[in-house]
Amino acid sequence: MPMVKNLLLDLAKSAINKMFTDISKPSLIVNEAICKRNIKKMVQKASRNNVIFRPHFKTHQSSSIGDWFKEEGVRSITVSSVEMATYFADHGWKDITIAFPVNAREINDINLLSDKTSLTLLVDQQASIDYLNNNLSNVVDVMIKIDTGYQRVGIPATHYNNIKKLVHLINNGIKTKFKGFLAHAGHSYNCKNQAAIKVVHEQSKTLLLKLKEHFIETHPKLIISVGDTPTCSTMEDFSWANEIRPGNFVFYDLSQVEIGSCDVNDISVALACPVVGVYELQNKIIIYGGGVHFSKEINNNAKNYGQVVMFKKGKWETTNTSIIVEKLSQEHGTIRANKEFIQNIKIGDLIYVLPIHSCMTANLMKHYITCDGKILLKL
Amino acid sequence: MPMVKNLLLDLAKSAINKMFTDISKPSLIVNEAICKRNIKKMVQKASRNNVIFRPHFKTHQSSSIGDWFKEEGVRSITVSSVEMATYFADHGWKDITIAFPVNAREINDINLLSDKTSLTLLVDQQASIDYLNNNLSNVVDVMIKIDTGYQRVGIPATHYNNIKKLVHLINNGIKTKFKGFLAHAGHSYNCKNQAAIKVVHEQSKTLLLKLKEHFIETHPKLIISVGDTPTCSTMEDFSWANEIRPGNFVFYDLSQVEIGSCDVNDISVALACPVVGVYELQNKIIIYGGGVHFSKEINNNAKNYGQVVMFKKGKWETTNTSIIVEKLSQEHGTIRANKEFIQNIKIGDLIYVLPIHSCMTANLMKHYITCDGKILLKL
Repeated sequence: MPMVKNLLLDLAKSAINKMFTDISKPSLIVNEAICKRNIKKMVQKASRNNVIFRPHFKTHQSSSIGDWFKEEGVRSITVSSVEMATYFADHGWKDITIAFPVNAREINDINLLSDKTSLTLLVDQQASIDYLNNNLSNVVDVMIKIDTGYQRVGIPATHYNNIKKLVHLINNGIKTKFKGFLAHAGHSYNCKNQAAIKVVHEQSKTLLLKLKEHFIETHPKLIISVGDTPTCSTMEDFSWANEIRPGNFVFYDLSQVEIGSCDVNDISVALACPVVGVYELQNKIIIYGGGVHFSKEINNNAKNYGQVVMFKKGKWETTNTSIIVEKLSQEHGTIRANKEFIQNIKIGDLIYVLPIHSCMTANLMKHYITCDGKILLKL
Repeated sequence: MPMVKNLLLDLAKSAINKMFTDISKPSLIVNEAICKRNIKKMVQKASRNNVIFRPHFKTHQSSSIGDWFKEEGVRSITVSSVEMATYFADHGWKDITIAFPVNAREINDINLLSDKTSLTLLVDQQASIDYLNNNLSNVVDVMIKIDTGYQRVGIPATHYNNIKKLVHLINNGIKTKFKGFLAHAGHSYNCKNQAAIKVVHEQSKTLLLKLKEHFIETHPKLIISVGDTPTCSTMEDFSWANEIRPGNFVFYDLSQVEIGSCDVNDISVALACPVVGVYELQNKIIIYGGGVHFSKEINNNAKNYGQVVMFKKGKWETTNTSIIVEKLSQEHGTIRANKEFIQNIKIGDLIYVLPIHSCMTANLMKHYITCDGKILLKL
């Protein structure tokens, strides 16, 4: 593999370790060009399908990255907590869906939010609807969570009578207004290739279209909202839905590569970690970068915690060498590498690692840094 | 199991769900009585053995809990990052060991710290010692990290010539002063009972005592520092060492129960999580409490993410029922439970969960709440 070897030699000579001289702790680097390309591709897919694009902002949780979506005309977003909704409302977002079952204990914040944004809430049981009608201060749009096979939350898509009962309760409530059905085909995360993702996608589509048939006459404006990164990244036809809500695609990660959602070159974040130990005889490098920085998400197939990439000329380059994060403690990461790589590394260098699950890694960060050194604020 | 049944019925009647009315998000509850008992027991063990007690504060990262140690006379602490050292120095701690290989990129903060505290740094290679001598502003105590079998970092305990070379370098450096040897028998975390922990303990002891023999004549004041929660909790004799540094024992967790370090009633923290969905037909409850609150640490044996406990009369009670957190997403937790339990739960209730790995869960929290509602600040 001469190309790989050249990359490794280049590494020694290049400015890689002189970049980001201010970075002293594990820091998530965002490649702005890749990230914006990911955003644009999804915006275009939504546009081709004539569906609302309501990206899930739980992945980045950043007002700065939110602005990149705004530049592409995005005005509607999804979040997974009242806290995130409040953060983005405070940053000017006016149309927010909280795609998490209503948390009654946050009713005060929900009411504050509904004063300043167009809010959509999610329910899948009568108790939540009753609670909302007794405690909301403003009328709020409500969607019913539908389970199309993931079996986490939601009413199974074929339980028409139960669903009908909830639709009725919502529409008869003084504070709740029925908006439609929201599904998350999270079982697509268990797929290992695009054919398997297609099966999940078609199954969800069939279930949701049948459901729509049952309600469209009485509720002609109802919305069908779907969206998970694997299906939204690999499937083309969403014209049968009204809205898509993928989130992870903004960064992607090694899990998504494994699933088949993206190529490794679509990953837009890498964790920069200071080298604190070089152990040539043991083919190992110790980085400051542990479970409190990466999270403990493991790659299902390869059983590692991240892959090392090169940072060159303002961007990173993936290699074919399998230089990986083999172990994580709270603060330590152990990198298994070959001698050629190790010989060019010294303490105080930075090593860049593609994460297994970017949502979890990003959540642990206080901010991001772009390849040209800009700080991006986050929740 | 009538006792369990009574507990379950009590649950419905008791004030459990009326406690902590202000809690709206997943919050880590600290049982102050259990926590202080854990601290006192370890203080007494150190005292019986006539060793320095230098608890690892990476578990709680809290100035308030630090004060509970101060009340027991503790003055020396261990941390695992420069950030934590700075936090505790700012809260009046004057004797701090950073038990993590020196991170050259944080040299400015290390120098600031060394102005205001008695700082001990950790090294296991020449490059780090050279770096310190070229960049430290004050003379600092340095310990050599010794590997007694964990194989993460450190010089193998029998590599006397290598160790001798580093001792020499440290003592000949203008800024570094040799203080002794520090070991972490982290492989005790793989044990499943006290007999296995004893094997690890004896192995470490033998290796470290032999190492001491090699250096004690030329360095009569050298310190042997050991400490991991499994050995410090279960072994009695530490008189052969000079210092112990356990950390997790302050909270303990289900991993430590599995290892045999403690009883489930020694666990001093539980994550209070709002109920957002009750699914009686599916024997399941959905809580607001996911990987971003618990971390994704899994129980090795039982393959779950936490165990539900009862909160009664200001403290929690463990049950024999296996009500567990079966799945975690970013924000959702899925609790598998029996009908009796589920029938007494409604949305808006709080459910209390013992964590798998309290260090990781605590790290994700912004503060703690005691059983009587006091807020404990943390980093």
